[in-house]
Amino acid sequence: MKVRIHVSLKPGVLDPQGRAVHHALEGLGYKGVEDVRIGRLVEMDVADDTTDAALDEMCQKLLANMVIENYRIEKVA
Amino acid sequence: MKVRIHVSLKPGVLDPQGRAVHHALEGLGYKGVEDVRIGRLVEMDVADDTTDAALDEMCQKLLANMVIENYRIEKVA
Repeated sequence: MKVRIHVSLKPGVLDPQGRAVHHALEGLGYKGVEDVRIGRLVEMDVADDTTDAALDEMCQKLLANMVIENYRIEKVA
Repeated sequence: MKVRIHVSLKPGVLDPQGRAVHHALEGLGYKGVEDVRIGRLVEMDVADDTTDAALDEMCQKLLANMVIENYRIEKVA
């Protein structure tokens, strides 16, 4: 089973990397960009019998820092 | 308009970060994980009149390294 996990900073948490990208896009002449936030994308191949609870646990224990980040699990196939 | 850009390593490109995460998950006792690859997630707020061509250009010029990475643009709202 393919699983895609989107990890993004919680709203309100400063994102210097996103700010740098925003600034760089403006420097390249793109005017319409209002906000940029950078997150992580974890693509995993897991056994078909992996439970949602196990996936949640992996995210909370390792893949996301729950103090400043949110995650979203998307099953692809 | 909200746009989500998924940047991931091309198949065949070594992913040491993904390998480290895979190893760590195994160390935590999760047996069913077969492969892990780590990518970037860029969430942008752009003006509604931003064209697809402009978004493509941003990806190719700045957001993705086309030599080793692929990107996918997803319009959220």
